[in-house]
Amino acid sequence: MLDEKILGILRSNADSHVSGEEMCGLAGISRAAIWKHIEKLRGEGYDIEASPHLGYRLVGIPDSLIPDEIKWKLKTKLIGKSVISYKKVDSTNTVAYGLAEKGMKEGAVILAEEQALGKWRQGRRWVSPSKGGIYLSCILRPHITPNEIPKITLLSAVAAAKSIRLCTALDAMIKWPNDILINNRKVCGILTEMKAEQDMIDFIIIGIGINVNTPIRLLPKGASSLKEELRRGARAEDVSRVELTRRLLENLESGYFLMKKHGFRPIIDEWKELSAMPGSRIKVIMQNRQFEGQVHDIDEQGSLVVRTESGVLEKVSSGDIVMAR
Amino acid sequence: MLDEKILGILRSNADSHVSGEEMCGLAGISRAAIWKHIEKLRGEGYDIEASPHLGYRLVGIPDSLIPDEIKWKLKTKLIGKSVISYKKVDSTNTVAYGLAEKGMKEGAVILAEEQALGKWRQGRRWVSPSKGGIYLSCILRPHITPNEIPKITLLSAVAAAKSIRLCTALDAMIKWPNDILINNRKVCGILTEMKAEQDMIDFIIIGIGINVNTPIRLLPKGASSLKEELRRGARAEDVSRVELTRRLLENLESGYFLMKKHGFRPIIDEWKELSAMPGSRIKVIMQNRQFEGQVHDIDEQGSLVVRTESGVLEKVSSGDIVMAR
Repeated sequence: MLDEKILGILRSNADSHVSGEEMCGLAGISRAAIWKHIEKLRGEGYDIEASPHLGYRLVGIPDSLIPDEIKWKLKTKLIGKSVISYKKVDSTNTVAYGLAEKGMKEGAVILAEEQALGKWRQGRRWVSPSKGGIYLSCILRPHITPNEIPKITLLSAVAAAKSIRLCTALDAMIKWPNDILINNRKVCGILTEMKAEQDMIDFIIIGIGINVNTPIRLLPKGASSLKEELRRGARAEDVSRVELTRRLLENLESGYFLMKKHGFRPIIDEWKELSAMPGSRIKVIMQNRQFEGQVHDIDEQGSLVVRTESGVLEKVSSGDIVMAR
Repeated sequence: MLDEKILGILRSNADSHVSGEEMCGLAGISRAAIWKHIEKLRGEGYDIEASPHLGYRLVGIPDSLIPDEIKWKLKTKLIGKSVISYKKVDSTNTVAYGLAEKGMKEGAVILAEEQALGKWRQGRRWVSPSKGGIYLSCILRPHITPNEIPKITLLSAVAAAKSIRLCTALDAMIKWPNDILINNRKVCGILTEMKAEQDMIDFIIIGIGINVNTPIRLLPKGASSLKEELRRGARAEDVSRVELTRRLLENLESGYFLMKKHGFRPIIDEWKELSAMPGSRIKVIMQNRQFEGQVHDIDEQGSLVVRTESGVLEKVSSGDIVMAR
């Protein structure tokens, strides 16, 4: 609380120094206590200048996924009002799932700098090194039925693609159902999990992993990071993970509220604009069979509609997709 | 293990006595040890005659939901191979869910004599007094997608109705989606819960509560028990809960295997035979609206198909149903 207060004072005086005396008055604590908190903030990565004559000044902010930074100027009403950050977890989805089972409210967000066992679809792993990724899980409790969960996945993919585009100007494209590609390389994956009864969802966990500044040597084949894709475009810059996380939470919320108010149709429209898929030739790999075809549409339930070789329209609600080159 | 062995020896000699000497030889332990185990079994409700001259004889078996009894002559390959029984739990579904999260195998069954907070649909309670009910949860891990969960609920309702009919000859009828009624009074309820990703179920918990010999004064309005319904038919007898539990597990398994092999169609056919609903006038109460109509069918996904007043066929996948009288 006091860290937050002191940080707030420094932020609102970013152009000037705040003297020790002023700081004591504003925070309501002793100079020694101020110093202790400044040291703690420095430990978290804040660059705080301390001049004997002028006082304190905030010079640099860490690009760490810590709650104070994420929540600073975050324009949401629900998603991210509660943020919990970890240095390392097995999986943010597992942590979020456990908290949701204990009653954690809708909109709570779990973040980690690193995942030991990052979860991805169907028991596969999302490689989650500590150097520069965003690993985020969000608890939602929508009044929908379990067969509507694909809508939440698609909505999340739209939010992720929009946020990546906004923060990097890279051409992020959605690959159904839950990947974001740039130049055909995977930079972001989404895993939605739920606890549900037959006709009522208890909660959904949206898990989003983004390779932001992650060195490409730490990523599996076929994957890339935003920084790597910027480098290919001769723009060698780090992407602010804090900024991207904020945009992501904001876009998630606006998509979620949009769907609540106007249904799934506007999300489908956005999805189509952000997906390279309509018209593409693909191979669908399902549990028992596989077939080739051309992407025709996605339907009102979020299933992919594929025109098979024989011209029949087939709905695909699960399985893996391979894009034909 | 030794209890089970001694019980086995007594069972296979139910018509005669087994002398202490024989028993020692068969079980491979001392007479003092035999006596200790006999006392333990008596404590669990087994009526074991001990005659100084003739030896031991099994005279009566407790109607308790203990694993040894349930598993005795249980004709299943999967469901009930592992049984865990409790005197009292908050909810067998909650216990089973927790065990499934820790990796408990498909087919495991959790039983309780009493539930403090018996779960039912949409946060409601299933009143679960200790006097004579069956409260059972079974873990399944089918290779289906979350939108197929209604199939599992319907399959379970079919198994429950068949088992009740077999053990009592009462006219048990299924009310969509998850109640069993006798003479229009609720005697059994089913709650299916799941943990799932978008296109893959991790596990399903089938929860089944049956009011077997439960005194009607302990039950809520509109509910009844099998014993009470037998009494109305002038057949004042207790129903064996152990027997009914075994039949239930066997019918669950045969339905589950049938669906795996031949799909959902044969389950639908059984459902229609065991449901009073087709042709009935009903009121459908959904979250945002309600309407009246006539039950037409259930579809391939387990949704109820209702012909509305205006003649339109409407699919109902969630909501409450009130039967018109």
